[in-house]
Amino acid sequence: MNTINETHHADLKSWVESANIPGTDFPIQNLPFANFRRLQSNESFRLGVAIGDQIVDLAALAQAHLCSGIVQEALLAASHEGLNSLMGLGRPAWSALRLALSEMLRQSYANQQPIAACLIPQARVEYAVAAKIGDYTDFYTSIEHATNVGKLFRPDNPLLPNYKWLPIGYHGRASSVVVSGKNFHRPVGQTSPPGSTSPSLSVCKRLDLELELGIFIGTGNAMGQAISLEDAENHIFGICLLNDWSARDIQVWESQPLGPFLAKSFCTSVSPWVVTLEALAPYRAALPRPVTDPQPLPYLSSEDNNSQGALDIELDILIQTQAMRDASIAPSKLAQSNYRHAYWTAAQLVTQHTVNGCNLQGGDLFGTGTLSGPTADEAGALIEITEGGKKPVILPNGETRTFLEDGDAVTLRGWCQRAGFARIGFGQCTAQVLPARVI
Amino acid sequence: MNTINETHHADLKSWVESANIPGTDFPIQNLPFANFRRLQSNESFRLGVAIGDQIVDLAALAQAHLCSGIVQEALLAASHEGLNSLMGLGRPAWSALRLALSEMLRQSYANQQPIAACLIPQARVEYAVAAKIGDYTDFYTSIEHATNVGKLFRPDNPLLPNYKWLPIGYHGRASSVVVSGKNFHRPVGQTSPPGSTSPSLSVCKRLDLELELGIFIGTGNAMGQAISLEDAENHIFGICLLNDWSARDIQVWESQPLGPFLAKSFCTSVSPWVVTLEALAPYRAALPRPVTDPQPLPYLSSEDNNSQGALDIELDILIQTQAMRDASIAPSKLAQSNYRHAYWTAAQLVTQHTVNGCNLQGGDLFGTGTLSGPTADEAGALIEITEGGKKPVILPNGETRTFLEDGDAVTLRGWCQRAGFARIGFGQCTAQVLPARVI
Repeated sequence: MNTINETHHADLKSWVESANIPGTDFPIQNLPFANFRRLQSNESFRLGVAIGDQIVDLAALAQAHLCSGIVQEALLAASHEGLNSLMGLGRPAWSALRLALSEMLRQSYANQQPIAACLIPQARVEYAVAAKIGDYTDFYTSIEHATNVGKLFRPDNPLLPNYKWLPIGYHGRASSVVVSGKNFHRPVGQTSPPGSTSPSLSVCKRLDLELELGIFIGTGNAMGQAISLEDAENHIFGICLLNDWSARDIQVWESQPLGPFLAKSFCTSVSPWVVTLEALAPYRAALPRPVTDPQPLPYLSSEDNNSQGALDIELDILIQTQAMRDASIAPSKLAQSNYRHAYWTAAQLVTQHTVNGCNLQGGDLFGTGTLSGPTADEAGALIEITEGGKKPVILPNGETRTFLEDGDAVTLRGWCQRAGFARIGFGQCTAQVLPARVI
Repeated sequence: MNTINETHHADLKSWVESANIPGTDFPIQNLPFANFRRLQSNESFRLGVAIGDQIVDLAALAQAHLCSGIVQEALLAASHEGLNSLMGLGRPAWSALRLALSEMLRQSYANQQPIAACLIPQARVEYAVAAKIGDYTDFYTSIEHATNVGKLFRPDNPLLPNYKWLPIGYHGRASSVVVSGKNFHRPVGQTSPPGSTSPSLSVCKRLDLELELGIFIGTGNAMGQAISLEDAENHIFGICLLNDWSARDIQVWESQPLGPFLAKSFCTSVSPWVVTLEALAPYRAALPRPVTDPQPLPYLSSEDNNSQGALDIELDILIQTQAMRDASIAPSKLAQSNYRHAYWTAAQLVTQHTVNGCNLQGGDLFGTGTLSGPTADEAGALIEITEGGKKPVILPNGETRTFLEDGDAVTLRGWCQRAGFARIGFGQCTAQVLPARVI
């Protein structure tokens, strides 16, 4: 587990002034990675690190030959498209690069000019998904979400007997994971509404969002071997925002007996920025599992995991309809939540995923599942917020929503704050619903 | 849909004599692809085409500069590891390469010597998975399998209401798809046998095989666009054998409500050889859907699909235990089946997978799902053959099996034959169960 070190100190300031503005997502304590290139260029994508409103172009920094040893090796790996090469170097390299960047960006650093030459304003770049994703797995770690959704289908028995014993997950679709800013068409699919005598092909009428975090695996394991809970966090590179768009009417018809499929695979959005697990070290939290619940089996349990395996990441969901945009009404908050409520930790997901011998690879993505919290205003999906479409949300301009309409833009945000430490943020994950194709 | 052309003529013979031996899987009418290199070499993997007991090394053939135009372009693409580059050239290139190889390998071909210089005996090579798989999706196309398995869980209601309306599928794990010949460790996982008060971590006790075919997608679609049923087969490259190893005790505990996960992701085996859809043109069959069943919705229905969308591929499953191997007893047949019984065609799977806008990519793999047939001896998994473990199979040496034991080797085979055409085969898909790791 990462410990707090000099890169986390709250009193660090950067010579990049925008990084010192209170409320910025990207102070010097954060240093998240993205896969980027200049807007409207034919440049190759490569890695950059956010500092204030700038990006440190790591390929340019590698070419400047200011660093040596493992740091220069990491910079050369970061010059490739996507995180995968850097991931392959392992945690010591990730950590050495973070420390070197922290030092070079501090106010006290002597040789700022050549670093400044590697900065590009974030306003002038475009992003791609942070890594080449081999496999994408979506989990179901919020017991509140599992209970809320379970109530809609099984009012007397919302939570299934396996829930408290193992992290439930399913394989997702990697090809349709796209970066924030890419809009998507409302899906089409087979549905069979209550009362219909036969299904029909139709445009999705119950389009939903799901507030999730994405966990990028940094290093994998050989097939047939498991990753122990103690070792699990060494395999995690970092965390991003993730919106698991869901077509509820398609889902309810297709998903027995094999689970969600086309109701999810039309689009999954992720934020461009990946906050490293090391950057998150100050925001650890204890697991919320009540003592009256069954304790996890030994392979899913450790003192460290119980006492500090969770992460205190504040989350919110904003919506802006086309009419709101037209009237210049700011996005409106649909819900807020926190990752610390999750019933299973990121480390437990890694261990569970590999207990059968399944091989993870650097660049694999885990979704946490919808991160609903314990109270009604912490529900992470419209199906929960509107109780299955029965209680519409009223927006600032008087519009109502049960599910998403064409033109709606949904934005997820995330940030960490704790007394004595800096506030760090995840940027945004946003996308707009485009009309369905004609059928 | 591919039509029968000169490459399928039954009277074609090759100057590679082993291709003319009756019963060979690889006569000149087949010409399947594999990703190979010489045994114990550090060579790069590249594509080869089977002819009798030999492989045409397509990289060597490209270097011989005997071909030009689209054929030489296809050979250069085939010089890379895996089918993906060749797939990217599209169906006209695949077809031109097939015709050129057919011509160069015919008995009548004048300039045999430089082709002969590109042959390597199959006994001297090793294989890798035929393509870099982006996403793997497993379907459930056998109504007999769905009914047989459904009966174990829901005796009164074995087949769910959606089954006859749309092909059911779920996302699978791509990283653990391995080539025939790679053995795997029995998985470990959480199980909760009937009567237990709480689950435990244990070695899988109900390890099963599943007789499937794998369908390799050759060319994909843009996100947000669908592939029509009429166009679907243009996107399919070819078909291989696939064994979807399954841990039934892990599956029954983990899979509600999100479907199969770790019960499948420990290993999936595929044959090295991919038989192209073009090679399969003579073995078309009508769909088996009874007229009393609901007809598919228009997007899943066409005259071509109804009359010749199915494929007549004979399949069987062989088992050889460690004791049988020690006593030199040949592998024993567990079951036989045929792909023509599948309720949904390969084209329907492509169309259904993309109807929501999900983007396929060249190299994606579909599993057909367990291909059980209508009679009891056509069951494609031990859970069906032994009726959930209640009726053991008796092997030639007197051993019995309900589920797989350590040391058991399972082999799948497939072939096509039809009066007036050659017999073509898929080779084998085989692997052996190794003991679980110590827990």
